[in-house]
Parts: sequence; C-alpha cells; structure tokens
Amino acid sequence: MEPINIDNDIINMEPPPSPKPSFVRNANLANMKEDYLYHLALDSKNHDLRDMFKDVKFVCFGGSPSRMKAFAFYMKDQLKYKMIAGQTLENISKGSDRYVLYKVGPVLSVSHGMGIPSLSILIHEILKLLNHAGCDPDSVVFFRLGTSGGLGLEPGTVVISEAAVDGILRPYMEVATLGMIIQYPAFLCPELNKELLDTAKSIGCQSVLGKTMCTYDFYEGQARLDGAFCDYTEEDKMNFLKRAHARGIANIEMESLCFAAMCHRAGVKSAVLCVTLLNRLEGDQISTPHDVMEEWQCRPQRIVAAFIKQKLGITD
Amino acid sequence: MEPINIDNDIINMEPPPSPKPSFVRNANLANMKEDYLYHLALDSKNHDLRDMFKDVKFVCFGGSPSRMKAFAFYMKDQLKYKMIAGQTLENISKGSDRYVLYKVGPVLSVSHGMGIPSLSILIHEILKLLNHAGCDPDSVVFFRLGTSGGLGLEPGTVVISEAAVDGILRPYMEVATLGMIIQYPAFLCPELNKELLDTAKSIGCQSVLGKTMCTYDFYEGQARLDGAFCDYTEEDKMNFLKRAHARGIANIEMESLCFAAMCHRAGVKSAVLCVTLLNRLEGDQISTPHDVMEEWQCRPQRIVAAFIKQKLGITD
Repeated sequence: MEPINIDNDIINMEPPPSPKPSFVRNANLANMKEDYLYHLALDSKNHDLRDMFKDVKFVCFGGSPSRMKAFAFYMKDQLKYKMIAGQTLENISKGSDRYVLYKVGPVLSVSHGMGIPSLSILIHEILKLLNHAGCDPDSVVFFRLGTSGGLGLEPGTVVISEAAVDGILRPYMEVATLGMIIQYPAFLCPELNKELLDTAKSIGCQSVLGKTMCTYDFYEGQARLDGAFCDYTEEDKMNFLKRAHARGIANIEMESLCFAAMCHRAGVKSAVLCVTLLNRLEGDQISTPHDVMEEWQCRPQRIVAAFIKQKLGITD
Repeated sequence: MEPINIDNDIINMEPPPSPKPSFVRNANLANMKEDYLYHLALDSKNHDLRDMFKDVKFVCFGGSPSRMKAFAFYMKDQLKYKMIAGQTLENISKGSDRYVLYKVGPVLSVSHGMGIPSLSILIHEILKLLNHAGCDPDSVVFFRLGTSGGLGLEPGTVVISEAAVDGILRPYMEVATLGMIIQYPAFLCPELNKELLDTAKSIGCQSVLGKTMCTYDFYEGQARLDGAFCDYTEEDKMNFLKRAHARGIANIEMESLCFAAMCHRAGVKSAVLCVTLLNRLEGDQISTPHDVMEEWQCRPQRIVAAFIKQKLGITD
C-alpha cells in the first residue's frame, strides 16, 4: 500500500505563514524583576544569562539525557571546538535532574524527556532563556533529533517531518488554557527541510520527507499489541496503521506536534529528524541489537552536525 | 473563597467500582515468546523477572530520578532492610536512561519523568513486569509521591487526591486509540485515602484530602503568567484558579489523571500524595530556598514510609 496524495487534506496544504519571530509573546515578562527557569536550574538573578548564552545559533533537542550529552561531545569534535586545557563540557542544568543542557559554542544540546508535556515545559524555558540572552530569533534554528517507529520504511531510515499530526491526524496541538481548548498549528519549514534532505544525501544517510504522527501514548496510542492493556486485534491494528501510511504518515513518535506547534508559534525555524527503529507494519517490539540501534540513533545527529558545519563554514 | 460542595458533580460522586484486579488485560501477551520492557531495559528472556520481583507489594512512583533514588535509600533505613556486606542498592534499569528503578524488599521506587505520556509508558511496563513476576494484583498498592502547585493551602501541605480531573475538570483520561478517543475514569480509593490521612496525622504531617487538577502543560495549562507565551491577564488567571478552587480543586500537577485512570483500569489500589510547593492563588514562580523545598518534598515519602511500615508490622 503506497502513500496516496490527497490534495485537499489540510496536512498537504502549504503551511500558514509564521508570525514575526519572537522568542516570547508575554507582556507580563517585562514586569518580572527575576525569572526562575525552574526546570533548568537557571535564573536571571544568579546567572548572567546574556553572557552565558548570547552566541547561541542552534538548539538541538532529544529525548534521552545520555544521547544529548554524547551529542554535545560529538559536536565538540565536529566543530573542532577548542577547550581550555584541563576543562571539559559540563551539564549546565546539573542543579536539576529534569533535563541536561550542554553548550558547545553556538550549539546547545538539551534533553527533553518523553512526551509532549515534558517537552513543552522545556521549550517554554529555552525560549525564555534565549530571550534573556538577547539572541536574534530570526537567526536561531531548533532541531529535534529523535527516534520513532516507521511505517513501510527500512529501519534505520531518518524521517524529516514535513508536518506533525496527532493520533487522529489533526495537524495542531491543543492546549487547555483557562477553560478553553486552544489549537496551535504544527507546521514545519519546507525550505529548511529541503536543505536538510540535501545534507543527508551529501553524507550518504538514508532519509525521506514524510508526515509524522505524534501520540500521547506509546502503546494503545500507537496501536501496539504489547501493552498492559489492548482490546483490539492484530487486524484492527494493521488496518489503522495502513490507513495512516496511505495518508502519508511515515513515522510515529511522541513530541513532534508540540515541537512544531511551539516553534511555529514563536516564528522560530525548526526541523524534526527522527530515525525509525523498526517498521511498525511488521512488528511492535524493539529487539534490534544494542550496537546497531546506537549507530541508527546517531544518524539524525550526523545530518544536523553536517548542516551546522556547513552554516559555520567548517570543513573537514 | 471557600470550596463549595456541589453534590451532582460527577467528581463528587462515589467512584465507579473497579474491575477485578488484573495487572494486564491483553490477550496478545500470552502468545509472546519474549517481552522486552524497552524503557526499563528489562526483558523476560535475559532476566528472571519472577525471581527478581515476586515479593513486590508496594510500588512508589515519583517524577525525579534523584528523588526516587533517595527514597529507595530512605526506605532501606526505614525498613531496617539488611544488605549483604559490601553491597548497596543499584538502579535496576541502569541500561536505560529513561527511568530509574530501585528495589528494597517488597518496595519498588521508580521515577516517571514529567507528564502523562512519560508516566503512561512506565505504568504499562511496570504492570507487565508485575504480571511476569506473578505478583498478586489484589495485594499490591501503587503510590505517586509528587510535587504540585496548591490552591489556598499553606505551601508544604500534602494533598491526598480524592479524584483527578483534567485541565477543564473532566474526571477521565482520554486515549486516542485506533482513531477513537476512549475515556478512562480517574478515581482513587476512598478507604486507602482515609488510612493515609490517619497515617499523616499520626506522624504530624500537614495533609488534606482534595481533588487534583492534572494538566498537559505547566505554563498556560496551569494559568501561569510567566511562560514564554501568555495572552491572558492576571485577573483572568485568578478568576480561573478561584473557580477551580471553589469546585474543590486543592492542587495542580501533571500526572495524577493517568496514574488514577490506569490503576483504576487494572483494579490496582492506588493513591496520589503531592506536596504543594507554592500557593498558586498568590504567585507563579518557585523561589523557596532549596533546603526548605527539599524538606517539603520528603513529606509524601514520610507518610508512605509510615504506612508501609505499619502494614509490614515494623516498629521503631
């Protein structure tokens, strides 16, 4: 079953224009004497956030703390970033055990945990951080480097998300706000995606553009048969996944909807690159050997590293 | 503004009866040769899960990995749990960096990260783990030990949740499943809550029963004024929080709805105990000194430890 192209689907339409970029849209912030970025263990009173973060140009998000620590050290090598003798990279948010945050010159590497709520807290605080630092919202790019289940793709393929949809294919994130459910469109940047796809090709990394389904639940929300609860059959599951695939869904994960919606709302350029760990049309359980998975999980990192080096004019 | 009692609210009604307790409700599991509990880094092929976990009676969940590690060591002391010379407690899920999992005799201490999706993955895998271990679903109790924002309570007060509701007061969790939105009621056990309240009193720990609002977003979802985005006024915020308080909401956090709904669905006895870190009717930012917060965060742990000791017949 090949993906079909349905031209009048909202998720096949051109993304709506982003607003003028601005890290924050909150009139109350100007009146705050101090700002505690609680989950990052940073604050505007005890830290000189401008001095620490003013040169940030690329913010790379990923779920796992150890993977994002490894990415920071990988970027140190890739950017040939010179450290002072006897010094090493440190987790800037070590006062909190919610997220890790590393900085390598213009690159931040930060972990977001699993699921939309955990990511949402982090993006609020990273946006406020960049605003305190006086960074230029026109020139900062956000990347999510993640893992996912693929639909009809060879495991190890990197999906660059054209758009994110929820578990019933709605292309927006809902936020219950003061008793109203507000919808924020979850579109990503076609131009940036085109550049990333070219970069992936140039380093020989198998990548495709596709739509990403983002769910609030890993088991039933993603039609798995192996959760503690399941009241549908394998046939029900396959019919659902095949229908999603036919409408252009290339992979399924748990954060892209929030990532795309919050970046779009701020007007910050962003992209989501997730490697597929398995083909969900063939199974549910992840039993690939650890070392193979490790190499796969590095693929989104390699693409983004190559992209950043190109932007910074760093050649090997 | 005192909470009002509105007798025909669903959330003021008696909880519906739980089904016959069963850790899993999934006919597919019986046909699986092996089960990878991926996010716990445990599996039924390489680990003797029955041998490792058959004596578990109390499963304690909390958001922060370091807090749940500390709780495990605290329980070791409280239960006078004898370790073999030269040995210490170890993170059983050290092969994953998603959650930490410690075991102290009949007590598991496990971290769930932030938000419903992160907790949901963990509960699926813990329920399957206890099923593999052959534990008795009638005699295992689950606790969530957390932090929250309070409404009209002195910070440091522990709220024992009578029921959980979402950000617009619906007493159920929704799971998008194969194209349908299924609703699971989020009720907790009145008898267990009564026992916990008595235990709290007996150790002099300020606690109240109340309803808990559980949101998918920490900033706008909880009517905060200090997120990256905010398009409402302080007056809007206060009106919303006061209306929630008047309907019996005592605190706001991000996991109780899923915790209550999944435990209720399995028929497993469960309770949610969250300390309030601030009074949201007075502010948004958390700036209490670190050592005071640390002591507050231990209060739910102290209550649950006293409860478990009582059940096990351990006296000081």
